[in-house]
Amino acid sequence: MTQADPSAATPPLQNRQVRVLRRALGVPTPEIFEVIDGPVPAPPPGGVLVRVINAAVDPAMRGWLSAEPNYLTVPDGAVMRAHGVGEVIASDCADWPVGAAAYGWFGWQRFAAVPASDMLWPVDLAVAPPEAWLSIFGLNGLTAWLGLIHLARPKAGETVLVTTAAGGVGGVVGQLAAAEGLYAVGLAGGPDKVARATSELGYARAIDYRAAGEALGARVAEACPAGIDIFFDNTAGALADGVFPSLNVGARVIQCGTAAVASWLPPPQGPRRERDILVKRLSWRGFVAFDHQALFPEAQARLRALHAAGRLQAHDEVLDGLDQAPGAILRLYRGENHGRLTLRP
Amino acid sequence: MTQADPSAATPPLQNRQVRVLRRALGVPTPEIFEVIDGPVPAPPPGGVLVRVINAAVDPAMRGWLSAEPNYLTVPDGAVMRAHGVGEVIASDCADWPVGAAAYGWFGWQRFAAVPASDMLWPVDLAVAPPEAWLSIFGLNGLTAWLGLIHLARPKAGETVLVTTAAGGVGGVVGQLAAAEGLYAVGLAGGPDKVARATSELGYARAIDYRAAGEALGARVAEACPAGIDIFFDNTAGALADGVFPSLNVGARVIQCGTAAVASWLPPPQGPRRERDILVKRLSWRGFVAFDHQALFPEAQARLRALHAAGRLQAHDEVLDGLDQAPGAILRLYRGENHGRLTLRP
Repeated sequence: MTQADPSAATPPLQNRQVRVLRRALGVPTPEIFEVIDGPVPAPPPGGVLVRVINAAVDPAMRGWLSAEPNYLTVPDGAVMRAHGVGEVIASDCADWPVGAAAYGWFGWQRFAAVPASDMLWPVDLAVAPPEAWLSIFGLNGLTAWLGLIHLARPKAGETVLVTTAAGGVGGVVGQLAAAEGLYAVGLAGGPDKVARATSELGYARAIDYRAAGEALGARVAEACPAGIDIFFDNTAGALADGVFPSLNVGARVIQCGTAAVASWLPPPQGPRRERDILVKRLSWRGFVAFDHQALFPEAQARLRALHAAGRLQAHDEVLDGLDQAPGAILRLYRGENHGRLTLRP
Repeated sequence: MTQADPSAATPPLQNRQVRVLRRALGVPTPEIFEVIDGPVPAPPPGGVLVRVINAAVDPAMRGWLSAEPNYLTVPDGAVMRAHGVGEVIASDCADWPVGAAAYGWFGWQRFAAVPASDMLWPVDLAVAPPEAWLSIFGLNGLTAWLGLIHLARPKAGETVLVTTAAGGVGGVVGQLAAAEGLYAVGLAGGPDKVARATSELGYARAIDYRAAGEALGARVAEACPAGIDIFFDNTAGALADGVFPSLNVGARVIQCGTAAVASWLPPPQGPRRERDILVKRLSWRGFVAFDHQALFPEAQARLRALHAAGRLQAHDEVLDGLDQAPGAILRLYRGENHGRLTLRP
């Protein structure tokens, strides 16, 4: 009697991973990563083994990979840190049995052996596909809600201006703004994104900042006849310079990202803001979504309700395969993505 | 029978006034004012005639006289706007009888005929001299309380750094900080002011920013070993550049003035702050005391209680005569004053 050896029939599963080789200067380029194959690990004691279905590509990753001080750093040699959606395939944790699907810190890899603390919340793939759990119900959606609703406290009829309006966060901000009865104006790069901002993402007006060039300030002023009450800024730099003159007294500036500035070592020069801050009584706040985890359930309930009501749609671009991961951050900063960018590993 | 004509015995009272001739570029210089004498007016219907005992000289006056946009402007030809302390000498208003003393918008003049709305609150000259009602119990004290206590919400043990620490507002911020159990560090110009900051104004440490020069950032870092939780900024510009690197995560920046920048047309260049704002989750707020008038009674009650307990002293320099008024703002910006500067008209 012979017994088939299954490992002879199917090759053993390999865990493909993307690891960080060194610090990036400016936007991370493919050379700072390596893609390697290795064995699939076992779950750690008390943790789980997750098959990663989808992994995030985020603007914040530039900061995580930078030599500059940041709120979070991925060290050299480590698997690239990333949020993802995955399914538990082996478990040493009663809270997360085999078959459970979750959103968590899974990294750029096919299989993630993680402690239970990296399993952030369950996801329901019957409600929306995995990439939507990384966008409108994931950190993008939470960030948009926290910045616009929790921090800026909008009142119906106010004007909100959003940079990277067609990006992962900006696309949710526009839809939330529309649902709140705000007048939303978006800045985006190129005619495709501008068209998408107004046709799909809730913006009343959108401005192509590349086409506007030096006239950006005039275009912003013209698009915001009542001035700007909330400036949701994902870019900093020259785009913000075009926006500040149109801020109203009492405006709230929400600093969510700094995507338009390639390097902060040393900080680039720009117009000083102190006089605007004083005379217009501005409130300018920076935030990182994970500082506000206690509010995530409230935010997610609202985002799911809007989705169920047909007022919040996901707009995603999924890259197929981890070989595309090393160039993905550059793609994002070049504005070549169409919607929220994720990877299917 | 003859009757003495009093106007023959004493010359008729003259109202000396300081009027604005034109806009200032940068810090107002004496040439933009004229000092003229005219008749003493009667109270307007429903208003009062006030004999001005003491009139304020404020850094904010530069903004009021500037061609640049500002929250408040004194037009050409008008009497220079200023807070003052005065006594009612003729009244057409039951709320303010002859003999009442008040803090109000009296301007740089000896006699002010004002509507009741310019009478801001009563003062008690038995509690403190008139100049104290223009400093610790006046807009300086209210501004210090609003910025430090109401907006920055300090917690005992936190570090607060204050620019123009020996100025009218800064001197009260230091004393309030000491009363709140904060560690207060002041920046001031010159050894006299530095000595006064620590000996009289509640500061644990004070730094002479002129002597520090390029080493200001290092001196600030050394004086604030636990970093800075609250930055109460009256200056903007290069001084702020020395402070920002020492801000802690979650720091509050209170923009109370911009005294170190001579002109904002166009805004001067400086290091962009967006990355600090994001990574350190800063909250940067501008404010103008009169936006918060509803809180004035609470603030004044606290300031008077601290004064009564011997924990809040006034430090004033009084200029004698309105002839000194045209040069007084320049004097303030050159740092030549010793304590809160007022005029006895």
